[in-house]
Amino acid sequence: MAERETRGEDALIQATFAPLASGFPGAFGLKDDCALLTPPAGMDLVLTTDAVAEGVHFFADDAAHDIAWKALAVNVSDLVAKGARPLAYLLALSFPDRPDDAWLAGFQAGLADAQAAFGLSLAGGDTDRRPGPLSIGVTAVGAVPHGRFVQRGTAQPGDLLFLSGTLGDAALGLLLRQDRARAAQMGLDDVSARALVGRYLRPQPKLSLAPAILEFASAAMDVSDGLVKDCGRLARASGVSARIEGVRVPLSEPARTAVEHSPDLFQVVLSGGDDYEVLAAVPPDRADAFRDAAAKSGVAVAEVGQCGDGQDVTVAGRDGRALDVAGGGWDHFPS
Amino acid sequence: MAERETRGEDALIQATFAPLASGFPGAFGLKDDCALLTPPAGMDLVLTTDAVAEGVHFFADDAAHDIAWKALAVNVSDLVAKGARPLAYLLALSFPDRPDDAWLAGFQAGLADAQAAFGLSLAGGDTDRRPGPLSIGVTAVGAVPHGRFVQRGTAQPGDLLFLSGTLGDAALGLLLRQDRARAAQMGLDDVSARALVGRYLRPQPKLSLAPAILEFASAAMDVSDGLVKDCGRLARASGVSARIEGVRVPLSEPARTAVEHSPDLFQVVLSGGDDYEVLAAVPPDRADAFRDAAAKSGVAVAEVGQCGDGQDVTVAGRDGRALDVAGGGWDHFPS
Repeated sequence: MAERETRGEDALIQATFAPLASGFPGAFGLKDDCALLTPPAGMDLVLTTDAVAEGVHFFADDAAHDIAWKALAVNVSDLVAKGARPLAYLLALSFPDRPDDAWLAGFQAGLADAQAAFGLSLAGGDTDRRPGPLSIGVTAVGAVPHGRFVQRGTAQPGDLLFLSGTLGDAALGLLLRQDRARAAQMGLDDVSARALVGRYLRPQPKLSLAPAILEFASAAMDVSDGLVKDCGRLARASGVSARIEGVRVPLSEPARTAVEHSPDLFQVVLSGGDDYEVLAAVPPDRADAFRDAAAKSGVAVAEVGQCGDGQDVTVAGRDGRALDVAGGGWDHFPS
Repeated sequence: MAERETRGEDALIQATFAPLASGFPGAFGLKDDCALLTPPAGMDLVLTTDAVAEGVHFFADDAAHDIAWKALAVNVSDLVAKGARPLAYLLALSFPDRPDDAWLAGFQAGLADAQAAFGLSLAGGDTDRRPGPLSIGVTAVGAVPHGRFVQRGTAQPGDLLFLSGTLGDAALGLLLRQDRARAAQMGLDDVSARALVGRYLRPQPKLSLAPAILEFASAAMDVSDGLVKDCGRLARASGVSARIEGVRVPLSEPARTAVEHSPDLFQVVLSGGDDYEVLAAVPPDRADAFRDAAAKSGVAVAEVGQCGDGQDVTVAGRDGRALDVAGGGWDHFPS
């Protein structure tokens, strides 16, 4: 049995994944079924789970390194928006067949890079084989000071809406990933096109912004299914209306070029997914302090709108006229 | 957008899953991306993740109620074996298509029943649509007194090996689920065959045994991939040898009938999976106290073997002769 074990499921776990858990004592070298987490004193724990699957969230021929990064990044993004500090994660892998060693090495390296960038460790997981797309499920655990979790549903009328980073790069990057020839239609050179594709492949959750969110935001969430849809969720959960000013939506240079070349792409910017930026509602009297804290953290934030009474979500285009956003955002179960 | 939301992904979550989270304040009605968990004072948290997928862990035509139960039970089983009390879980669902309302109602009812039986609540999750088999991933969180987590790798030479419940029912039940005509070959009437299939469909983790494991076991794990394989894992992780006496392995009446009718089925009993019983290593001087505590908890435990020096795992058959167990147990990536 021992020899068999050196080549089977347990061996795969020990060779590829146990090294990623070596910094976390409660992982027991991935030789136990469970992970042990001693909660940091005075902290609440924040848990989130998101899976990425081949053909849905990534392409079969994406680099294993990028796939691994993305699987962790999309979960860390959720934690950051709650003001939480990442601690650990569990990994649930489903392979249709055992991946080859080169793929596993790239996947391991991608996880290692993401762990280092985001400050968390592998604590446990589950590996199985089944038909269907390769799927990587992550459950991430973070810590937030007791009683300070930043909810989605606690925005107030009058709160200003801030967005971190730039919007729409990943959605435009996805279009380019699907058809590189679109770069010319978007007026983009190769460097710019590559930058947008990179934003799709490797989301960059804004970890350093978490303390500012914790201190100044009345509500926050990450933008993963498109600003229009996610802002609607924040407004609905909070019982407020929201208005987004398109002209204030921050665009990267490549995205600005693309939108100026093809104005219809602004709808993609507003409604496409995979941004993994933070949308935060901040009371007006704390807005300057939030801006200052964000600047000190090295993360750009832009005021993109405001909450109000009522329940409508309206979006003004770059020309100031209301946009039709009825279909906005990604939905796994569209009606 | 509001109307769209009443029929899409968010509506599915609100209609089917939010009621399961109503008892857990940190779930925020499933309107947030993250769940909030305030750790009980003086307790460590125990985390585990296991997925069940159609065609691998259940059949497409299994009742939705049973599928839901199994998805939770296999995770709770991991917690119980560590001496932990279940607190909450996250649910990661992947559907190839939106299931119909009757299926969702059965699935919801199965989760509700399992939550009540196991004493935990839905805290959060993730739902997406993708090709491939229906998959239900669960991450369960439990609590154990600080510093008391029962590891897999801490058995000592001389420890007695105890098994809860009876072994092999689920593996025999799976054979019957695949081909009901086997009942006659096993010498089983319809009631007995149904009982074994029920053990496959609805695992019963031994929650009430957790305090006895916590107090008396030097090491423990749940048996999910077959006793032979899982005992090997415990022995290897602990650096001990283990010997299992087949004649002591506890069998249910239907399983005993089947094995007496077809002695080869004893290999299935030893190496089949899906038992979700507890394998515990207990020092000899604590064995009586463990037996007493187990009896008071209402869970039968049987002494099935012993740990020793060295590293071999040997299994004596019901006739006392050594069995060849080189291929034993379920492996998702067999070599």
